[in-house]
Amino acid sequence: MEQGSGKIADGAEKQPRTERGRKTLRKLLDAATIEFGERGFHEASISGITRRAGVALGSFYTYFDSKDAIFRALVSDMSDSVKRAARDALTEPMTAFEVEKAALRGFLEFASEHKEIYRIIDEAEFVDPASYRTHYETIAARIRDRLQQGADRGEFRDGLGEAHAWAIMGMNVFLGLRFAIWGEADDWSADDVADAASDLLRTGIARQR
Amino acid sequence: MEQGSGKIADGAEKQPRTERGRKTLRKLLDAATIEFGERGFHEASISGITRRAGVALGSFYTYFDSKDAIFRALVSDMSDSVKRAARDALTEPMTAFEVEKAALRGFLEFASEHKEIYRIIDEAEFVDPASYRTHYETIAARIRDRLQQGADRGEFRDGLGEAHAWAIMGMNVFLGLRFAIWGEADDWSADDVADAASDLLRTGIARQR
Repeated sequence: MEQGSGKIADGAEKQPRTERGRKTLRKLLDAATIEFGERGFHEASISGITRRAGVALGSFYTYFDSKDAIFRALVSDMSDSVKRAARDALTEPMTAFEVEKAALRGFLEFASEHKEIYRIIDEAEFVDPASYRTHYETIAARIRDRLQQGADRGEFRDGLGEAHAWAIMGMNVFLGLRFAIWGEADDWSADDVADAASDLLRTGIARQR
Repeated sequence: MEQGSGKIADGAEKQPRTERGRKTLRKLLDAATIEFGERGFHEASISGITRRAGVALGSFYTYFDSKDAIFRALVSDMSDSVKRAARDALTEPMTAFEVEKAALRGFLEFASEHKEIYRIIDEAEFVDPASYRTHYETIAARIRDRLQQGADRGEFRDGLGEAHAWAIMGMNVFLGLRFAIWGEADDWSADDVADAASDLLRTGIARQR
């Protein structure tokens, strides 16, 4: 998935007005992904980010006034990327179950190509707790909407709510951790993992009688 | 749940040989829970731990040779606590579905009384990645065993495996985060959340026809 698509850097202090500025901001965020992903927040430095991005230090301060600020912008940017990865995996027409499965498969593929995402989102719990919480609350709200749409279409049962949305999100996050992040590439396929999760959602784990 | 029950501090460099030593080690770990939970690993200090524990600095070095060492011991101790919280919630006889539900309810109650557990386990991803991974791999292995037992008893379907275990663990972890850690006490009950998760496992989310 191209990270450059869509709106970027909600968290940037100043939005670029030119195409060149937009590219510079994108370079800074992509460099920050590597710098924070490899070194962690505390060891990461602004000069490390600008060096990786190949831009001047002054350009950094055009958009961000601190390491905290670009980290916050990066978490928001990654939230958007996760959203797009799940959404881009959807095609019309799909049943509500197919939507859940495609969203998970899209996320697994995204995470396996951007393994740094777990480390950065997880580090936000300590560096920027509000962003961490917003990240998950936003995803859970999207899942709740999909559960409601599935119920409206008569596919999902009524009465699904907050707990079910967080349960599904937790499933997806931990399947990503186990397979996309910690798994060996030969050891799993996004299709198989998404199938297992989809079967669980479709019929549970009881033996059918 | 009493944290002092069971074996303690696998990770301690030296195991206490006396009851008094055992109590000192327990005090150090309980104080470390608060120190790391409130201040985070980087801000936490050995002197902060011994002050909270009311023990002399020399006693710390009887058991641990560094802040890293007691953090590692604490993650291992918390893994054991999570295991006991889930296990203590079980009574005989229970169906396999009742076991899953009781284990989740026990975990939710434990987490709501020990809210620092998320912060400490999550920080292990950065401070001590091996402990972090072991924590989850150990829990997933226990869930896999229970899935196998449930299948052997004819209650769960065949073919449940690694993906299902991680899906269930992720459900439980995120339900704990949403309700036990972030929820207002009046806003949820461990019974209701465990019921929702149990229904999901039992029949999935499809509308019954």
